[in-house]
Amino acid sequence: MRMYDVIQHKKQGLPLTEEEIRFCIRGFTDGAVPDYQMSALAMAICFNGMTPQETAVLTDAMMRSGDTVDLSRFGTATVDKHSTGGVGDKTSLIVAPIVSALGGVVAKMSGRGLGHTGGTVDKLESIPGYRTELSAAEFLAQVERVGIAVVGQSGNLAPADKKLYALRDVTATVDSVPLIASSIMSKKLAAGAHSIVLDVKVGSGAFMKTRGEGEALARQMVDIATACGRQAAALVTNMDVPLGEAVGNALEVQEAVAILRGQGDRRLRELCEALAREMLCLCHGWTAEQAAAKVTESIDSGAAFAQMCRWVAAQGGDASYLENPDRFPTAPAYTVCAPREGYIAAMDAEAIGVAAVTLGAGRARKEDEIDPAAGIRIVKKTGDFVQAGDPIATLYTHRPQAVEAVTAAYLAAISLSDTPPAPQNLLFSVVK
Amino acid sequence: MRMYDVIQHKKQGLPLTEEEIRFCIRGFTDGAVPDYQMSALAMAICFNGMTPQETAVLTDAMMRSGDTVDLSRFGTATVDKHSTGGVGDKTSLIVAPIVSALGGVVAKMSGRGLGHTGGTVDKLESIPGYRTELSAAEFLAQVERVGIAVVGQSGNLAPADKKLYALRDVTATVDSVPLIASSIMSKKLAAGAHSIVLDVKVGSGAFMKTRGEGEALARQMVDIATACGRQAAALVTNMDVPLGEAVGNALEVQEAVAILRGQGDRRLRELCEALAREMLCLCHGWTAEQAAAKVTESIDSGAAFAQMCRWVAAQGGDASYLENPDRFPTAPAYTVCAPREGYIAAMDAEAIGVAAVTLGAGRARKEDEIDPAAGIRIVKKTGDFVQAGDPIATLYTHRPQAVEAVTAAYLAAISLSDTPPAPQNLLFSVVK
Repeated sequence: MRMYDVIQHKKQGLPLTEEEIRFCIRGFTDGAVPDYQMSALAMAICFNGMTPQETAVLTDAMMRSGDTVDLSRFGTATVDKHSTGGVGDKTSLIVAPIVSALGGVVAKMSGRGLGHTGGTVDKLESIPGYRTELSAAEFLAQVERVGIAVVGQSGNLAPADKKLYALRDVTATVDSVPLIASSIMSKKLAAGAHSIVLDVKVGSGAFMKTRGEGEALARQMVDIATACGRQAAALVTNMDVPLGEAVGNALEVQEAVAILRGQGDRRLRELCEALAREMLCLCHGWTAEQAAAKVTESIDSGAAFAQMCRWVAAQGGDASYLENPDRFPTAPAYTVCAPREGYIAAMDAEAIGVAAVTLGAGRARKEDEIDPAAGIRIVKKTGDFVQAGDPIATLYTHRPQAVEAVTAAYLAAISLSDTPPAPQNLLFSVVK
Repeated sequence: MRMYDVIQHKKQGLPLTEEEIRFCIRGFTDGAVPDYQMSALAMAICFNGMTPQETAVLTDAMMRSGDTVDLSRFGTATVDKHSTGGVGDKTSLIVAPIVSALGGVVAKMSGRGLGHTGGTVDKLESIPGYRTELSAAEFLAQVERVGIAVVGQSGNLAPADKKLYALRDVTATVDSVPLIASSIMSKKLAAGAHSIVLDVKVGSGAFMKTRGEGEALARQMVDIATACGRQAAALVTNMDVPLGEAVGNALEVQEAVAILRGQGDRRLRELCEALAREMLCLCHGWTAEQAAAKVTESIDSGAAFAQMCRWVAAQGGDASYLENPDRFPTAPAYTVCAPREGYIAAMDAEAIGVAAVTLGAGRARKEDEIDPAAGIRIVKKTGDFVQAGDPIATLYTHRPQAVEAVTAAYLAAISLSDTPPAPQNLLFSVVK
């Protein structure tokens, strides 16, 4: 078999055979297939697409290119959650303890933030003592004992995907639905959970700009899971409005605590309940109604918050910070005020994410340090009416020199209008 | 400027700016643009094409990526000829002395054969003493003195094209008309002639399989020349039938001599007259009728043959071989006979080219030695009626062990039919 012919077939619009796809991923992983052939193939895939069968084989081949986590001792009770990346998305911190409190097994690997999106691991590290690195034995023992563990990604998971993503990133071949779907799913499948719930973000702060694009990606990811002997569901959700009120690591942990204590942003709670519900439907076979009732009860009874404290403590974190969120160190605060009267008609979530990075809450480059106290608290959101001079956001930062530019950037990210915007749905659709 | 954006623009179907194209070819030539980005761009061009303006800029950028031959001392009298590659194509050996005898200035660099197609330089080297390598000063002095010189390609002509072609060859991105057109024309423009006549072959033995494809390529090449301040015309010709009767180096020189002496294959002479006519129309501004009459006269009077002898002698070759072609060394001959009665309905020119290589007449790999005496003489051609056992071809080779397989391959390349095939035109169209 020659890589030339594989490229030629895809260029001609033919579906690739399983043998061709496995040949190509094996060769790319071990270096026998050079980057210049792989990038030509990726570009041909951008134009001619892949069938569901091809996409599933590609995902499986990338999943098997490195280590895989064996969670088989937990049977089919393991359930994972993945978001396609958002600004201020702290749902994992909330959903994981809810699901765990209700008997789902959460053995989760999470990422770090880069660019305008945050990472769950960075958020957890703002809790003093929390260990994001556990040995495989420690990780599995904690999952058995507590029902939940969340660590940073370790080991050599889906190296073919890592290499291919880096190549796509510099060859303008990122925006292909089958390539995005197989990239996400190869890592999720390698992480071992039997069920996976996907949160596909759509809107200004997300990679998928339209609902149709988001639903197409959701469909492909769910089908991949099925083809690979797992199960999945996907929520397609609106990212035109930032999620909750906090953007920044310790700020988001505090907001997660508020939600689990029955306070905080209504839409954020709504999304978390929907995610937890789908996870429990998959891992327990519950109906949506059963699951919804149990989820609400686990929050209202305090069971989910108790499980969050148990989890964090088990993993070395100081749970007293959760009991008393005022203990989190704070950064100097700067108020952003409305320049004129009007309704907030739109917010550019990506620009707000970038603003938070500038304040120290994230990384522009992989090696940057994060300031856990830095970030933004959003006071007025899309649909709110403001008077000139009203506070609309609070910036928290140890970089006073950044405040002027970030204030300007924040104001630029907000559109004011004389008429109220049409209300927007949070949840567009559920794909199963 | 970033190569990423150049790739992205082409992928989105936008025309690239002159600045983008020059940035990309400069970077690719000096190594700043890696192969994996260039192959992704080439694939995007395969799908989205290039405008005439983009193609002209690409050609100009590749032409300027290395050395260029300065023929400005000859004004606008210089005229070159290029064939897109054929089997048994010895037209340069015939056309160059005709044009030169009629006052066109032929300062020509030719290639070597590789694979199933032959090269003019290899053919000329079968004439004892002929020097295919001249210094730049010798080359120009001979052109001034004799009006004609034909050498092998030297110097660093269009290195960007060389590098890009090698990359396209392994990434299934060869078959893009703008990339083919710019590749051919960048080398031709670098070789310095003011006028260029192109012979675009169409058919089983050629890269362009249909007349429409050939005409599209011809159009683009002619337009590139105009955009770059040169002039060109293109003949689109039928390669479904091999050209002339000889395939192999000394055999083809002998056939060229025959044509210039008023003998030999009628269709071969017809094509040579058409090529010479177009060359003279361009460099002298003659009408087609004027040029046609002068070309015929230069052959019939012996002037063209005399100029061939003068040229070969000036370049160190023993012209007595031309005066007396029986002096060329021969190889043992083997006759191929018709297996049954019928009309020759089709001949696979590419397969016949490969058969000649196997006999020693060409190179399978760049480093292979050529046997100047090896080759094939085609006795019966498309349209001829043969009886079972009639000789249809003669194989010449010093490799007796190859004869059995080549005989079988030759017979496989011939289709016999009970009814005569429809007559085929040689010249499909002239594109100016």
